[in-house]
Amino acid sequence: MPKVSNKWPRPSQSSLQRRVLRHPGRIWVLLILGSLTLNLVMIALLASLYEGEGTPSCKAERSILVAEEKKSVVAAPQQQSTAEELVSAEEISVSSTSGKRPASKDAIINLDHGDPTMFESFWKEMGEHGDIIIPGWQAMSYFSDVTNLCWFLEPEFAHEVRRLHNLVGNAVADGHFIIVGTGSTQLFQAALYALSPPDAPEPMSVVSAVPYYSSYPAVTDYLQSGLYRWAGDASMFDGDAYIELVCSPNNPDGSNREAVLKSRNGKTIHDLAYYWPQYTPITDAADHDIMLFTVSKSTGHAGTRLGWALVKDKNVAKRMIKFIELNTIGVSKDSQLRAAKILKAVSDGYELPVSQNNHRLFDFGRQLLSIRWQMLQEAVKASDIFSLPDFPLALCKFTGEKTGTYPAFAWLKCEKVEVEDCEGFLRKHNILTRSGRHFGVEPKYVRISMLDRDETFNLFIERLSMLHH
Amino acid sequence: MPKVSNKWPRPSQSSLQRRVLRHPGRIWVLLILGSLTLNLVMIALLASLYEGEGTPSCKAERSILVAEEKKSVVAAPQQQSTAEELVSAEEISVSSTSGKRPASKDAIINLDHGDPTMFESFWKEMGEHGDIIIPGWQAMSYFSDVTNLCWFLEPEFAHEVRRLHNLVGNAVADGHFIIVGTGSTQLFQAALYALSPPDAPEPMSVVSAVPYYSSYPAVTDYLQSGLYRWAGDASMFDGDAYIELVCSPNNPDGSNREAVLKSRNGKTIHDLAYYWPQYTPITDAADHDIMLFTVSKSTGHAGTRLGWALVKDKNVAKRMIKFIELNTIGVSKDSQLRAAKILKAVSDGYELPVSQNNHRLFDFGRQLLSIRWQMLQEAVKASDIFSLPDFPLALCKFTGEKTGTYPAFAWLKCEKVEVEDCEGFLRKHNILTRSGRHFGVEPKYVRISMLDRDETFNLFIERLSMLHH
Repeated sequence: MPKVSNKWPRPSQSSLQRRVLRHPGRIWVLLILGSLTLNLVMIALLASLYEGEGTPSCKAERSILVAEEKKSVVAAPQQQSTAEELVSAEEISVSSTSGKRPASKDAIINLDHGDPTMFESFWKEMGEHGDIIIPGWQAMSYFSDVTNLCWFLEPEFAHEVRRLHNLVGNAVADGHFIIVGTGSTQLFQAALYALSPPDAPEPMSVVSAVPYYSSYPAVTDYLQSGLYRWAGDASMFDGDAYIELVCSPNNPDGSNREAVLKSRNGKTIHDLAYYWPQYTPITDAADHDIMLFTVSKSTGHAGTRLGWALVKDKNVAKRMIKFIELNTIGVSKDSQLRAAKILKAVSDGYELPVSQNNHRLFDFGRQLLSIRWQMLQEAVKASDIFSLPDFPLALCKFTGEKTGTYPAFAWLKCEKVEVEDCEGFLRKHNILTRSGRHFGVEPKYVRISMLDRDETFNLFIERLSMLHH
Repeated sequence: MPKVSNKWPRPSQSSLQRRVLRHPGRIWVLLILGSLTLNLVMIALLASLYEGEGTPSCKAERSILVAEEKKSVVAAPQQQSTAEELVSAEEISVSSTSGKRPASKDAIINLDHGDPTMFESFWKEMGEHGDIIIPGWQAMSYFSDVTNLCWFLEPEFAHEVRRLHNLVGNAVADGHFIIVGTGSTQLFQAALYALSPPDAPEPMSVVSAVPYYSSYPAVTDYLQSGLYRWAGDASMFDGDAYIELVCSPNNPDGSNREAVLKSRNGKTIHDLAYYWPQYTPITDAADHDIMLFTVSKSTGHAGTRLGWALVKDKNVAKRMIKFIELNTIGVSKDSQLRAAKILKAVSDGYELPVSQNNHRLFDFGRQLLSIRWQMLQEAVKASDIFSLPDFPLALCKFTGEKTGTYPAFAWLKCEKVEVEDCEGFLRKHNILTRSGRHFGVEPKYVRISMLDRDETFNLFIERLSMLHH
């Protein structure tokens, strides 16, 4: 920032001096009076302006504001583990002690949830490409774009969503409506609402093949809706009308999934939260009727609560939009503006010259996750207690290389005969995981987040390595 | 904020005086030069300020940021009125052409919704006190504060909520849990969920005295929940167990409300969205079991989708938090951080010295609304077709003065005998309003937003004034 003094224009002293010296008398008085009056007027003007908007040498003040911002407003979460108050983990999709940095070697390691704090270090590196400024008077209206079917969708966010899908090639955005949601959880409910006839005699059955994402049953049933109800494992479902949830790559086990049921009257919702190059080879551009994505897993911004759906059918899109109107009257503009900036930075990292942005999110994510998976596999092998699923290599059309699969969660099985409850076994060692029973399978399985910060993950590996048969 | 002149470094005056006195001829020259230089500097400063929003020394940097922001991220909504695609206004709480600036005298004037764009000009005046910067790496976790019952509540937002209630005196925040929600609409549903027993044989009856807020029935019933269902006018309700919604000041008619029903088994939810000094005298600090507020109506930031509840009972608070976990896994951190900054600016306007922040939201709002109400009352009187409710003056404990009531909506009654449908009558004159039938009463009534931008409101008054018996 230029120094204040450099910006002050200087009159030519010599010519001024000459004129002044030639006309002593009243000219002086007039000149001085005029000049001083002008000074006073402008000081008053400036003062009134600055009261509202800033200061002349605003550098100092502005950095104070920014610092204050960081200190007082963007406060880091207070992270302690006194979380007894929280609702039981059985019914919620996140747990209590997330974000906690393990304070000591004996600390509780919480890998129950999928808090994607691993990505923080990437965004610190990214610097100001990922920052956003929102002036106090902007985005105040309920409306983003009344010409769009989805009237609460910020055009710039929609643009960056299409741009990113075109870059990555993981989904066909063309020919689909984009619907923004308060996380993909809200969009999942919007899709259930849209696909369930309002006047059916019975609630629509909602199914998913085991192991299914642990939130699906609770989120489907918490309001005891007359429109839809959870009906369990898709493979066991016997009926004609249903909504099948297809999560691919699958949460919790990382496998690639297709719909299990094939009735003409059935509907599917494809939850593609993890179909990004850091987790899995991009083998094809998905082109389903309803596809759900979220910034939580693609960029790591879980706190932003922002997801999007790509929806083929206009009437389904309308009903989903209606759900979001009734549920939350649209979606935070602030989150959309921030997400637009974040997605832009991701695409820029691949599309701009390296000199302008050389930060490549998917490379960062895949590299870090491949290291973590290798560490985990070695620790598991050494322990002789556990096993992990195997994943084949596949050609990733995004990278153009044969790449491995590095899921966001490890689906760990306890092979010890005498241990029925793997979650309980690990809890004794102060490792918190989510039991297989939340995913519709045996408690011999647990789901473990691979997305926490380095120190948490490293401590986890260290502790796991100490367990032996 | 200190005056500009005070911030400019001054050489030691005594030494200056000495020099000046020793060289009498040059005094003039020095004075004129100094004065002229100051003029030039200030002209440059003023020019730069008027050009954009920055200030001289930071102009370059900041205007780049802002320009980039405006161009790429904070895109202004595209505002046209081709909104046929949108869901019918009957069932939604907002409508399609909001934010549209009327292009001509014959333009459609949409006052159906309560889009609070009136407040934009205040926040433009406020300048950077209302701006927020969020670095790309911050607030990425799902969690805000795991030591808080409401683990997704940003501590700084909670702090500013308590501070503002203490300042305004409109509600007792002490002894209440603060729960943040994606607008008060989500909190309303969270409260229904919390107050309905999960295992009751029948859904809980949800009631509100007519005229009630038009969204209550739709938001209660859209999922056909087994937990609760809309049961209409509270005054007509015959039963023992119920949830009564008390909106005060009431949307649509601006009246002060108390619960109509008094059963020991009944529960109440107080929707205090409009209990702020710009709309009504603050006669007492409300101290109910569940009180709902929102930034949409308090500060005008509807696009931020942020509300809060003050909740006395811990178990009710827990259930509400659980609802928000299941519905959207918490609430956007970006919105909370922005809202914290906005509420801080509002409180600062009253608590800091005028030199640091002289922008007083409630004064702005009350002044503008009192002018608008006067204009409306005159137009209504002149038309001889309509009538408006009367409001008594009352002592406002916040201002310390007897003040009037200036509701966010006008509840207009068409007194013309031959006009049954006031909404249809006004629609013929290209004025869109919301019919009384959405509020549980006759279509002789309409609700009209008083919160739109000046140009929309003025055009509305102009057109209304042309209607005669």
